[in-house]
Amino acid sequence: MSSNLLQNINSSLDLKKLKESELPTLAKELRDFIIKIISQKEGHLGASLGVVELTIALHYVFDTPNDLLVWDVGHQAYGHKILTGRRDVFHTNRDLNGISGFPKRSESLYDTFGVGHSSTSISAALGMALASNLKNEFDKQHIAVIGDASIASGMAFEALNHAGVTDANLLIILNDNAIGIDPSIGALKEYLASFKEGDVHEENNIFKALNFNYSGPIDGHDLDALILELKRLKAVKGPKFLHVITTKGKGLQLAEENQVKYHAPGKFDPETGKIYPKEEEGLPQKFQDVFGHTLVELAETNEKIIGVTPAMPSGSSLKYMMDRFSDRAFDVGIAEQHAVTLSAGMATQGMIVFCNVYSTFLQRAYDQVIHDVALQNLPVIFCLDRSGFVGEDGATHHGLFDLAFLSCVPNIIIYAPLNEIELRNIMFTAQLGLNHPIAIRYPRGRGFIKDNWKLPFEKLEIGKGFCLKEGSKVAVISTGTIGNNVIEAIKLVSDNSKLAHYHFPFVKPLDIGLLIEIGGKFDVVITVEEGVINGGFGSLVASFFNENEFKIKIKKLGILDEFIEQGSVAELQKNSGLDIQSLLKIFEKMI
Amino acid sequence: MSSNLLQNINSSLDLKKLKESELPTLAKELRDFIIKIISQKEGHLGASLGVVELTIALHYVFDTPNDLLVWDVGHQAYGHKILTGRRDVFHTNRDLNGISGFPKRSESLYDTFGVGHSSTSISAALGMALASNLKNEFDKQHIAVIGDASIASGMAFEALNHAGVTDANLLIILNDNAIGIDPSIGALKEYLASFKEGDVHEENNIFKALNFNYSGPIDGHDLDALILELKRLKAVKGPKFLHVITTKGKGLQLAEENQVKYHAPGKFDPETGKIYPKEEEGLPQKFQDVFGHTLVELAETNEKIIGVTPAMPSGSSLKYMMDRFSDRAFDVGIAEQHAVTLSAGMATQGMIVFCNVYSTFLQRAYDQVIHDVALQNLPVIFCLDRSGFVGEDGATHHGLFDLAFLSCVPNIIIYAPLNEIELRNIMFTAQLGLNHPIAIRYPRGRGFIKDNWKLPFEKLEIGKGFCLKEGSKVAVISTGTIGNNVIEAIKLVSDNSKLAHYHFPFVKPLDIGLLIEIGGKFDVVITVEEGVINGGFGSLVASFFNENEFKIKIKKLGILDEFIEQGSVAELQKNSGLDIQSLLKIFEKMI
Repeated sequence: MSSNLLQNINSSLDLKKLKESELPTLAKELRDFIIKIISQKEGHLGASLGVVELTIALHYVFDTPNDLLVWDVGHQAYGHKILTGRRDVFHTNRDLNGISGFPKRSESLYDTFGVGHSSTSISAALGMALASNLKNEFDKQHIAVIGDASIASGMAFEALNHAGVTDANLLIILNDNAIGIDPSIGALKEYLASFKEGDVHEENNIFKALNFNYSGPIDGHDLDALILELKRLKAVKGPKFLHVITTKGKGLQLAEENQVKYHAPGKFDPETGKIYPKEEEGLPQKFQDVFGHTLVELAETNEKIIGVTPAMPSGSSLKYMMDRFSDRAFDVGIAEQHAVTLSAGMATQGMIVFCNVYSTFLQRAYDQVIHDVALQNLPVIFCLDRSGFVGEDGATHHGLFDLAFLSCVPNIIIYAPLNEIELRNIMFTAQLGLNHPIAIRYPRGRGFIKDNWKLPFEKLEIGKGFCLKEGSKVAVISTGTIGNNVIEAIKLVSDNSKLAHYHFPFVKPLDIGLLIEIGGKFDVVITVEEGVINGGFGSLVASFFNENEFKIKIKKLGILDEFIEQGSVAELQKNSGLDIQSLLKIFEKMI
Repeated sequence: MSSNLLQNINSSLDLKKLKESELPTLAKELRDFIIKIISQKEGHLGASLGVVELTIALHYVFDTPNDLLVWDVGHQAYGHKILTGRRDVFHTNRDLNGISGFPKRSESLYDTFGVGHSSTSISAALGMALASNLKNEFDKQHIAVIGDASIASGMAFEALNHAGVTDANLLIILNDNAIGIDPSIGALKEYLASFKEGDVHEENNIFKALNFNYSGPIDGHDLDALILELKRLKAVKGPKFLHVITTKGKGLQLAEENQVKYHAPGKFDPETGKIYPKEEEGLPQKFQDVFGHTLVELAETNEKIIGVTPAMPSGSSLKYMMDRFSDRAFDVGIAEQHAVTLSAGMATQGMIVFCNVYSTFLQRAYDQVIHDVALQNLPVIFCLDRSGFVGEDGATHHGLFDLAFLSCVPNIIIYAPLNEIELRNIMFTAQLGLNHPIAIRYPRGRGFIKDNWKLPFEKLEIGKGFCLKEGSKVAVISTGTIGNNVIEAIKLVSDNSKLAHYHFPFVKPLDIGLLIEIGGKFDVVITVEEGVINGGFGSLVASFFNENEFKIKIKKLGILDEFIEQGSVAELQKNSGLDIQSLLKIFEKMI
């Protein structure tokens, strides 16, 4: 490293030893360091580049970690990590056993609250601030840094509404760059944008109306201005709100110009910012693109089809629908609750709504799934992207609970395709009309079929499972794409004539007829799912056999009762015993 | 009935036949009718009295049910039901097989969206409005009526934020009475209150800032003003916001003066409004009061204890803590998501937080339980009030999913006490420090111990179950208060020496040692829980026996895979086979 200043900073105290005049140099070094590492390691780039100055100013002015700093979501916290003791391990970012891509309490005292999902920071920091008051720590400051996309999400508003009637030493910093992962959405964003244009909001803006001591907007790349204002605010008691304007990707021209692409650009040239082409030749499509293109294809002939995404048009590939049928595709912002009930409202009027939500984020709308969709039996089609392991984003982002938390809900059909063709066919089948809600879960990333995934649609029979391979002794029953590992493992079993393999794409309703056939034929059943075992697919299968007094030994493979950290999907499957080799071992043992 | 006008109104069309000058008379008749029925039948009174004029005006002006009217929560929709064809069955309100206490799609075309939980109306109505645009129904209006407590909840803000950037024919009517079930909370409420005092908000209020065509506030009991303004708004395209000021309990003096008590007052004198004294002599305490008093008792000696409720201080009895330690008890408004993450933030600072949420409403904060509490293993103490059947509030309010949706979450302890003493002891034990989050579920209403429930505290051993009765052939394993039905049923079994009864207050972690003992001793096990079978307690028990190759026949009793409608708790237990007589029959059959 050519860095001089950065290499000596391992804490907030080290940072405070610098002269204010040295901070712009530090900012440049920090930005270069982030670019250098992320250009090789991949990860979230744009957000952290955007808050380099803010990060420095916060640790320079405040007495962290005694003053408590909470980063919302955490995509932007790389600079924070590098300045607070993790510079030399930053190259392990997002690796198995490396540092987390998000703030994490177990990693550092400076990480006061673990994040990953959006809009939690104000609630958490307010809780800390109210606790400090009760502990008579009245000089302590509590700071939530939240983006303009995140602050529009419901729970952030709940926290604002509460904070405004407390005497908490809470400083909310709105990092306003008009973009989340995709451009921010909604009336609040338009309102905030008007601030920049110099309109007068001083007298009565939304944040003042909610009782905050509001200041700003100020330039979030102007270190002098930031430090001056933060010093002033440090001495102010009660709830405060500082509006800071930043540019996502700041300092790397291509990242500033292509903010969506450079949110997490993959590998790139650290000098020019130019993204290295990925070797994609001959690889299967991503499930996301299969979803996106298939939706457009269906929407061409079925004009009742609508697509809804809470802030993930690029990630989910709903963008194809937005491009083709802009009036029938809705990005509602980071608003999973609203997305689900909006879809329910549309469904009451006969629309066929594909509501695409990442599995982990559907947890945000669980009540709406139960209360607004399932209870009314409205035929909303949930597409649960990024089910199973997501890899490097880690514990906050895996989609491992969905089968468990959905299978206890009445009326809902649950489908987990083996591959792209099944995903297409269930989408086709669902839009024909099911009279029930359905949740279709599929993983992040590439599918399994290199050519010809775009076959003519076939209508699927609801609840039907399949025998993929006959066998004499042990039946493996899998659901979803993990079945592909089962297929490969069985091929490797020395005497695989003993092993049968059944694919149950429908987790609910289960194929009872097929289960009875299996129960009559085998003494040993192994269930396989990429999801938690407690309450999941294997549980339902075991319950059926048990209730119906089949005397079968059942081995359930899936995720044990613990949170799973980051790593590549292959590593995580291996650690959970779901990779081909682990499955092979179990199969060899059981036959 | 002395009613003349009301008895001829069975639809919005009938209502439109009246002259405007007759409407005040109709309002009086409607109010009297509601009071008369509810004074005998019980139910939600104050909210419906408050919107009598608004209800009449809406159906008078708009072309319902073609124009689509969504009531938020639905406590206030009695007048709506009575005017739209349900007058003559209104006396069956909230009965088993009677009409629902909430709007319900299966009940009437006028009930466009089923409700019960708060803050869904804007999302639902917006979904309908966007659908109408796509169907080229540009003259159709879509109306959400939402209270000032509900509009402060997160998902309502998400919907406002989205609606403001659409061209939807959406009319949001803010029914501002400064109270939900308990008085509204938060900065928005204070802001709205300032409107009434004649401050100038015309230029730049929050709703205008979010792009709504705002009008008001107007007097919600002035029929002429309401009709004039609604007629004007009917012709306005796009998103509109009408601010209406009402008085909860309007027209019944005692209800106006005691709005919390008259939210759902029980039986009362229809003339004077005086609530009839309940026969409470000799009855056990309510679980709510056991919780409330015990929390105060513990907080007297443990100053780290904090209580949090999302808008249910009266219902949960957290009010006792608020009265005694006002600085350590927080009503955060209808904000379950915020409540949970606020509690997590407090827990990071060493506070011991009792976060009391109704079981059904914890569905609203499921992601926060997983992502902010369980993943970080913060020792928040969740008290899940109204678990199991809640009775007359019906499908939207039963707490039947909690065991299933929590038992798949790592790190969390789940406890279901048999009675008041166990509730007290687990609260005592939890505040000593568990190093894990815990969810304590208990039902609505009376306990089981007439005297001496307030015994000295005992520290419980985490994960320990008990044999309540020895037996030789069949083991019944129950969790929670439904175990009391099991106890009674076993007493009635002809030869009950064959029946053993085990109580497992810990659903997680299970008492493995005791399960092994049971598994070694019995060939038949019956599990009993007041919750869904899929993924619930019985599932965990069966999984254990199965995984460990005990050859046991297991019968799981609980709620089948369907939504359960309203009725008394006794009726619902009977219909689900969980009452004493049904259990008795099963037990007789199995031994």
